[in-house]
Amino acid sequence: MPATSMEELVSLCKRRGFIFQGSEIYGGLQGFYDYGPLGVELKNNIKAAWWRSNVYERDDMEGLDASIIMHRMVLRHSGHEATFSDPMIDNKKNNKRYRLDHLLKDQKADVQAKVAEIMGESADNFAALVAALNAKPAQASAAFKEAGVRDPFSGEVGDWTDPKPFNMMFKTTIGPVADDESYGYLRPETAQGIFTNFKNVVDSTSRRLPFGIAQIGKAFRNEITPRNFIFRVRELEQMEIEFFVVPGTDEEWHEHWLEKRLKWWEDQGVPRSKIEILDVPKEDLAHYSKRTYDLMYDYPTLGHEEIEGIANRSDYDLGSHTKSQSELGLVAKVEENADSIAKLTIPHPETNKPVVPFVIEPSAGVDRAMLAVLSEAFTKETLDNGNERIVLKLKPHLAPIKVAVIPLARNKEEITSVAKKIKAELQGLGLGRVLYEDSGNIGKAYRRHDEVGTPFCVTVDFDTVGKGEDAALTDTVTVRDRDTLAQERVKISELAGWIQAKLR
Amino acid sequence: MPATSMEELVSLCKRRGFIFQGSEIYGGLQGFYDYGPLGVELKNNIKAAWWRSNVYERDDMEGLDASIIMHRMVLRHSGHEATFSDPMIDNKKNNKRYRLDHLLKDQKADVQAKVAEIMGESADNFAALVAALNAKPAQASAAFKEAGVRDPFSGEVGDWTDPKPFNMMFKTTIGPVADDESYGYLRPETAQGIFTNFKNVVDSTSRRLPFGIAQIGKAFRNEITPRNFIFRVRELEQMEIEFFVVPGTDEEWHEHWLEKRLKWWEDQGVPRSKIEILDVPKEDLAHYSKRTYDLMYDYPTLGHEEIEGIANRSDYDLGSHTKSQSELGLVAKVEENADSIAKLTIPHPETNKPVVPFVIEPSAGVDRAMLAVLSEAFTKETLDNGNERIVLKLKPHLAPIKVAVIPLARNKEEITSVAKKIKAELQGLGLGRVLYEDSGNIGKAYRRHDEVGTPFCVTVDFDTVGKGEDAALTDTVTVRDRDTLAQERVKISELAGWIQAKLR
Repeated sequence: MPATSMEELVSLCKRRGFIFQGSEIYGGLQGFYDYGPLGVELKNNIKAAWWRSNVYERDDMEGLDASIIMHRMVLRHSGHEATFSDPMIDNKKNNKRYRLDHLLKDQKADVQAKVAEIMGESADNFAALVAALNAKPAQASAAFKEAGVRDPFSGEVGDWTDPKPFNMMFKTTIGPVADDESYGYLRPETAQGIFTNFKNVVDSTSRRLPFGIAQIGKAFRNEITPRNFIFRVRELEQMEIEFFVVPGTDEEWHEHWLEKRLKWWEDQGVPRSKIEILDVPKEDLAHYSKRTYDLMYDYPTLGHEEIEGIANRSDYDLGSHTKSQSELGLVAKVEENADSIAKLTIPHPETNKPVVPFVIEPSAGVDRAMLAVLSEAFTKETLDNGNERIVLKLKPHLAPIKVAVIPLARNKEEITSVAKKIKAELQGLGLGRVLYEDSGNIGKAYRRHDEVGTPFCVTVDFDTVGKGEDAALTDTVTVRDRDTLAQERVKISELAGWIQAKLR
Repeated sequence: MPATSMEELVSLCKRRGFIFQGSEIYGGLQGFYDYGPLGVELKNNIKAAWWRSNVYERDDMEGLDASIIMHRMVLRHSGHEATFSDPMIDNKKNNKRYRLDHLLKDQKADVQAKVAEIMGESADNFAALVAALNAKPAQASAAFKEAGVRDPFSGEVGDWTDPKPFNMMFKTTIGPVADDESYGYLRPETAQGIFTNFKNVVDSTSRRLPFGIAQIGKAFRNEITPRNFIFRVRELEQMEIEFFVVPGTDEEWHEHWLEKRLKWWEDQGVPRSKIEILDVPKEDLAHYSKRTYDLMYDYPTLGHEEIEGIANRSDYDLGSHTKSQSELGLVAKVEENADSIAKLTIPHPETNKPVVPFVIEPSAGVDRAMLAVLSEAFTKETLDNGNERIVLKLKPHLAPIKVAVIPLARNKEEITSVAKKIKAELQGLGLGRVLYEDSGNIGKAYRRHDEVGTPFCVTVDFDTVGKGEDAALTDTVTVRDRDTLAQERVKISELAGWIQAKLR
């Protein structure tokens, strides 16, 4: 039974140290989040699982970690300077600014219907309605006023301007001189660092087609209205693959990656039954895309929203960043590039003639992955004794803490020294974080570790050190299972093996 | 025998895919680097070793991963808005801009001596000379002109302006409205995200003093003159600990961390004998520091430069970011803070009264660590046959590739299928990246893997599959040791255990 509302997740994340609002002590910064002691472990575990599956376990993938700040020419030729924008609209009454589609979505159904009617569109096709509003800005502002679109901040009907595009890239000055050329962008996606390094990777690894380049890293989008916790943020982290293939084999590889990625999500505890595959209609495709599958996960409160996009980008990207475009027989329509100094081709594996490969791009968000994983793991149970507990049934490889070792008495050296030794031994297994847990009483510790998804709690008590009632329990500890609540007495000498076997 | 020049490292890094210039196909972006297929593995291995040692293997540390873009108030109250600057000076003849101390360092000795003489300082105390130049800008420009300070770009004596401070933080507009308040900074250090989350971490983990918070992440500094490969860059990565202690115990903890960190560097292959501990003189200390140890590693070409700073920051940071400063009996001199909404205290472990802890900060750079690790591992050897080889004698836990599995014939399915099976089995051990290597002939592959530091190459040949001359070699492979060059025949069934034992 996964989470039923975003609120329960937000509350758990803050209380237990998964996620905090960024710059919180100064009132917070909208769209920025900090990952706390447990959040950083969960996030790192998700990233490691992705890297393992996509880089280590394949024989056709290389990794990369490119810089965040990039040359303005990269983002010009990628198309982002011209097209990476959202429509915004202002309320002249209070100078508040909104993303047009978000504003419309926040209106009551009858207001939406009225806007659609005025625009001559159907309220059922939201995307088409938004496209029409963007295409006819003067009509759009008139429609918003006439339909009585309200400002979510003031609650009153706004005096709306014509919508206009707002570029979502963060820009910054590089170097000590602020002139017309001394700026760069924070990358809005990690992908561009892969395309610009295509030749470097090929030259240093001798890769042949087909092969891919994988990258995990931060990306930045100046969202007009960040919202929904870590779902739509301004600073995000991506896990992206650009998989380069011989043109003509792209459709087959597209299917391969769709299947692979669904399998991966399942391995992280996000079942296929909760993911809708949206075969994006031709008319909604981005200009670079031949075909795109959007994986739409059923988030609590939000409903189906994109957790990953898997796009067939044809030869658009390498074609846009290469020099000598006209000689290369590109399929995609690209803008002229007189700035690039590199020819981004690779020998065709059969003919050996230089070819610009097609690209399949599975692109997932780390933060959205975390939200989905937390949502699926979140469980509220009524126990036999009638008490309710919250437990995060995370897959063990994702659990922020693998084992908590709890000394039953915090100040008895004979007990704490044994507990510390056990902690050190289990930590040495290389399974992830093992916690020496002496922050509260045992009941509190169990509750805490249920809520953060720790698969096992190991308790060292008086019996362990031969000072209990049952001498047969000397050198044994109690191991409590997060999911079954079963408590088992295990010999210390067998504990490492026991835990290893369970966590595999 | 470590590297003797930066050039040999730069050349290896580019050739083998460790490090590329950022945005290279558009002419490059100064001060930004991209980590290639091997660089990303080495970097991740260094970060994992640091996290393991400082978070997992201790019982008094929590992790964190805060956002890069921060509220301007964070960087105002941290002191960065006012003081995080370098002096810059312009040449009016060609409008080139330089960092004053870098420009002076680039001059011939007699020019430096002349500048010092005019300023009434000694050329031997470079720091004091730079301080004097900053303190008296008008005199400084006159001295530069009179002494004949040359512009490194034109090679001619410059017409120098008065030096002035240049703030090194990258600034960017947040949200759709560009007004006086809608901006933030890219953090110049990860530390501030730790201080601003102090209360969040304490509240969610029930930590008591002493304890620390560790963080790894990107930081950004708009260096006027980035230089020396990845040593001085504009986008860097840090590994920082803020360790919070009871005031009065800070000096002892400072020594603890000095010792711990030297030990860690040694474990990464950077010996103590190559690190000078600089006990920073009182007059050179940053305003927040009670005492600082700078670890100065002997880099090839550069000489002794900072690889890590370990500072006793007293109660300056939490004191600067807390509300109700006047009630807290702060030791450090802090600027008034009317913006913070949080009281950054913790109960004293004995008296239970709220106290603002002192902070010990071990702060290391990932990029500089990588450069030091590469430099120490770099070895040029003359082999018995008279040939020379370059080999990276990396500690196995840092090696980007742990094992390369090489099929002797790329197109013989009976051989490649065995090689792939072995690769998958070794990969499953969780040691790090195992590479299926079929990109060249065996000699080339060995040379490549020497140069990238792969501890073991496993070769599958005709004997392995029972088609060689010696039937006794069926189901065995050749394992080649990077350092000794010894080749040993190992049974496939025993290979996993053999490798595991060697890599531990």
